[in-house]
Amino acid sequence: MNKVVFGFGLLLSCVASAHAGTGPAVISEKAKAIQAKAINLDTHLDTPALFGRPGWKITDRHTYSGDGSQIDYPRMVEGGLDGGFWVVFTGQEGRDAAGNLKARDAGLKRLSEIREMVAANGDKFELATTADDAARIKAAGKRIVYISMENAYPVEQDPSLLSFYYKQGLRMISLAHTSHNDFADSAGMGVAPKGEHGGLSEKGKALIAEANKLGIIIDQSHSSNEVFDQMLELSTAPIILSHSGAYDVFAHSRNIDDKRIRALAKKGGVIQVNSLGGYLIDTGATPEYRAEQRKIYEAFGGRRGMSEADRKQAMEQIAALDKKYNIKKADFDDYMRHLLHIIKVAGWEHVGLGADWDGGGGVQGYEDIAALPKVVQALLDAGYDEKQIDGILGGNTVRLIREVQAKADPAAVKAALE
Amino acid sequence: MNKVVFGFGLLLSCVASAHAGTGPAVISEKAKAIQAKAINLDTHLDTPALFGRPGWKITDRHTYSGDGSQIDYPRMVEGGLDGGFWVVFTGQEGRDAAGNLKARDAGLKRLSEIREMVAANGDKFELATTADDAARIKAAGKRIVYISMENAYPVEQDPSLLSFYYKQGLRMISLAHTSHNDFADSAGMGVAPKGEHGGLSEKGKALIAEANKLGIIIDQSHSSNEVFDQMLELSTAPIILSHSGAYDVFAHSRNIDDKRIRALAKKGGVIQVNSLGGYLIDTGATPEYRAEQRKIYEAFGGRRGMSEADRKQAMEQIAALDKKYNIKKADFDDYMRHLLHIIKVAGWEHVGLGADWDGGGGVQGYEDIAALPKVVQALLDAGYDEKQIDGILGGNTVRLIREVQAKADPAAVKAALE
Repeated sequence: MNKVVFGFGLLLSCVASAHAGTGPAVISEKAKAIQAKAINLDTHLDTPALFGRPGWKITDRHTYSGDGSQIDYPRMVEGGLDGGFWVVFTGQEGRDAAGNLKARDAGLKRLSEIREMVAANGDKFELATTADDAARIKAAGKRIVYISMENAYPVEQDPSLLSFYYKQGLRMISLAHTSHNDFADSAGMGVAPKGEHGGLSEKGKALIAEANKLGIIIDQSHSSNEVFDQMLELSTAPIILSHSGAYDVFAHSRNIDDKRIRALAKKGGVIQVNSLGGYLIDTGATPEYRAEQRKIYEAFGGRRGMSEADRKQAMEQIAALDKKYNIKKADFDDYMRHLLHIIKVAGWEHVGLGADWDGGGGVQGYEDIAALPKVVQALLDAGYDEKQIDGILGGNTVRLIREVQAKADPAAVKAALE
Repeated sequence: MNKVVFGFGLLLSCVASAHAGTGPAVISEKAKAIQAKAINLDTHLDTPALFGRPGWKITDRHTYSGDGSQIDYPRMVEGGLDGGFWVVFTGQEGRDAAGNLKARDAGLKRLSEIREMVAANGDKFELATTADDAARIKAAGKRIVYISMENAYPVEQDPSLLSFYYKQGLRMISLAHTSHNDFADSAGMGVAPKGEHGGLSEKGKALIAEANKLGIIIDQSHSSNEVFDQMLELSTAPIILSHSGAYDVFAHSRNIDDKRIRALAKKGGVIQVNSLGGYLIDTGATPEYRAEQRKIYEAFGGRRGMSEADRKQAMEQIAALDKKYNIKKADFDDYMRHLLHIIKVAGWEHVGLGADWDGGGGVQGYEDIAALPKVVQALLDAGYDEKQIDGILGGNTVRLIREVQAKADPAAVKAALE
């Protein structure tokens, strides 16, 4: 109670600066031991978006305050993250022939970039394609690289490309991003937009059937509630929400309600908790704020591909904008509020971590992957035991990979790998 | 004259063993100096076919007699090869939807394998995409990796994939391999087969137009004479024969006649001389021999992907088969006969080397890339000077890359790279 009052006072007096909810200051030996033994996976690493950034190297140690990045090899080691799903992300643009071709090329390029990163750092990273790969790669002292796709836009022009993605290691796919596409309706960016397909399109249903055949995990994050209901109904294997929050904690259309979390768990699925501030709390971001923010990025030619100097300038301008609009920053406690709520609703066997690092995730006190041990400590403090925390850190994800692949069609898998 | 008589005697007495025509035994300091200064490029390196071979590493030194391979980093250094065009090769199979999809996936995978090889060996290899890259990469002490495609089969299902290949570094493309496809008629395997399209199909013409726009060099090797004539007519840029021989030296349908060599040179093109024995001389291989050879490979599950033990056994069986059919082996002198003839016909400015290493090339005395200095010595012995040899070793290829890219459509290039 005191803490709440204290937090509230701080909020009024110094918005956007460090405050009380930044999590455990000390990590216990027990927490460290649990993490060392667990397979620590994050199911939504947007870091591949940085692979093309001039001069940025995954083997260098960066800081969030320095360049905005949240994952690199040194920080993975520091935070104890063994790996996860590295994302082929494509922002939704035009759904005409030109847009689809551009997305196809961008997706294939990102896929290649992930494989090239692994090839270039064979002593530190290894591609994982099966459930067993995770433990094997960790035991070999390397970091685990599963590949996933966020937004199926790159296969809109030709869904048969899914076989090539599978051959190259893709083991998880989501259908839509922040707007509708040919496959599925999006959950939108706060208030659910009017659906285009009433959930999944026929093309979306066909993609799910194909993914099931190949043992590719189907990821609902960013899609609409109707898509969730239909995925759960149609998919022959359990599904994942690779990076989502709790609607019953914060009523944002990107989050999922308790009823659906229970339905997901009942079917053997898992929900991996997101740390993107705007999905955790009401930050007070208005359409006007968002428009101004967009303008800042546009003035620098967009968020991607900025020079380091431009990035710093843009970040300073965004900070000033946040101050002007009195934007509230989410913190570690806000993240844990979602995580603990979801664990209670789903049961610990159906929860994990998908913090959206390098894709918008991160809150005060949980700025980058180096802070991962705080979550372990907070789970211990909340009363969870080693077995439960082990599942949340990665065991549940490994189980899901195994279950989804066990339900694949061996003939389809063989044909795709030939 | 003596040599000829001696060679003939040997041929009768010990077919398939080493004989006189294995080239210069000593490499002069002058030859070494020329090579050190030149940009030594081979325009048809099939070595990427080995990248997927279990345990095979480009950084290890192999021997041709040991595992049949002809290119690796140590032997490139030894032979003074600075690099060349590394091939995305796909053998022509079914032209139905299933075949086209399989070829699409195989092509994209090979492309990725080439880039991964470069990523994994960033201290030794570098991707080259422009003419200037060659000298820059050589000066940096690394080997040059241009990417080409042999057989456009991987883009039959969707020719628009060419833009993705370009984005990833493709700078040369041939249309057909040993049989006709949707783009073009093949030259076949000895006697020209009846054409299907009478040269290029409409789809083939469209692909050439697109390649021209992007500044991708058009490669006629393996296509029919009619394709040659039409390419020369249609292409807005000079073309290449990346690995071909002289029909007027040996009348094989894979070789090109003097009239066409002159026409090629007149339009600014270059012909790179192949070292595949069966295209250099009449080896006496009959259809029966070929059928038996095919059976041997089939018994091991095909030429690709054999285990090392199986490969050795297959090579032994092929050697016994060669003996049974009295198969004649081409040698270094046979190779030089084609090369020197072509230089005379085309003019030295229009000739280079494309020995088809790891794709069937190599003759007695010229078994792998370590033997490259012999060609330099033989050119000196034949009276060519430094400037001429420099052109043949790579200067002419670099000039061609520059010319073809200068004729590209900047808007198309910009769009493909976005």
